Amino acid sequence: MSTSSAIDEIEEGLAFRPKFDAAGLLTCVATDATSSEVLMVAHMNDEALHKTIATGEAWYFSRSRGRLWRKGESSGHVQRVVEMRIDCDQDAVWIRVDQQGGAACHTGRRSCFYRAVVASADGVPTLAFVDAGRVFDPALVYGKPG
Amino acid sequence: MSTSSAIDEIEEGLAFRPKFDAAGLLTCVATDATSSEVLMVAHMNDEALHKTIATGEAWYFSRSRGRLWRKGESSGHVQRVVEMRIDCDQDAVWIRVDQQGGAACHTGRRSCFYRAVVASADGVPTLAFVDAGRVFDPALVYGKPG
Repeated sequence: MSTSSAIDEIEEGLAFRPKFDAAGLLTCVATDATSSEVLMVAHMNDEALHKTIATGEAWYFSRSRGRLWRKGESSGHVQRVVEMRIDCDQDAVWIRVDQQGGAACHTGRRSCFYRAVVASADGVPTLAFVDAGRVFDPALVYGKPG
Repeated sequence: MSTSSAIDEIEEGLAFRPKFDAAGLLTCVATDATSSEVLMVAHMNDEALHKTIATGEAWYFSRSRGRLWRKGESSGHVQRVVEMRIDCDQDAVWIRVDQQGGAACHTGRRSCFYRAVVASADGVPTLAFVDAGRVFDPALVYGKPG
């Protein structure tokens, strides 16, 4: 069923062989275990991935801050992992989480995906707010703007 | 609500300003519009993103093959986009799709995420098949193994 035994082992085997990119990261999609909504997309390095598996709470690697990051470390809005899955070529993981505090986004919204991309009358893509209500006020939670 | 007007505009504005990484890509998560299941994670360059918006069918950029790729071009299993959303910092998109043929994965499975990551008795992560039944035989659809 595969072009080589190496691919076969990655795609059809039971060995956990996460494939990190040149920056040492893989992509993680977090969805709400109850609503199935996509909450956020972030990255994990090897340490974040193994801490997530070991602790049952989501850890990420922040590309902008260049450091490991336990989701909710500032806000208290941790993500408890209900299930982790890995994709066919083992370069992305999907976690279904119980989102503490009800909001994953630092802007205070349930999901980071609070805007739809729509084509305007002249065909130029523009954005439209959807599900954009805030669950919390980021100024209160983070003690600073934004 | 933000640390600067630039961030505010990206996070709270209605202008579509996709932020590509150093390789010119952003991450795309595709979910099934009916079941909400995560089907796949892939990448889009500027051209793939704009073709997706213009045609209403998913286009990606294949990192392994180094080329633009219309999902379903070999298999016929195209993805019709029901809605596209973009995240707070505009470096990831989420598309809800009608998956033609019922399977997104090149292995013939509905989703690329057909294995769960589980901790074995000794704490070492291993994989377990879940939802691993094949919708199609890849050898028949692609005319080659795998």
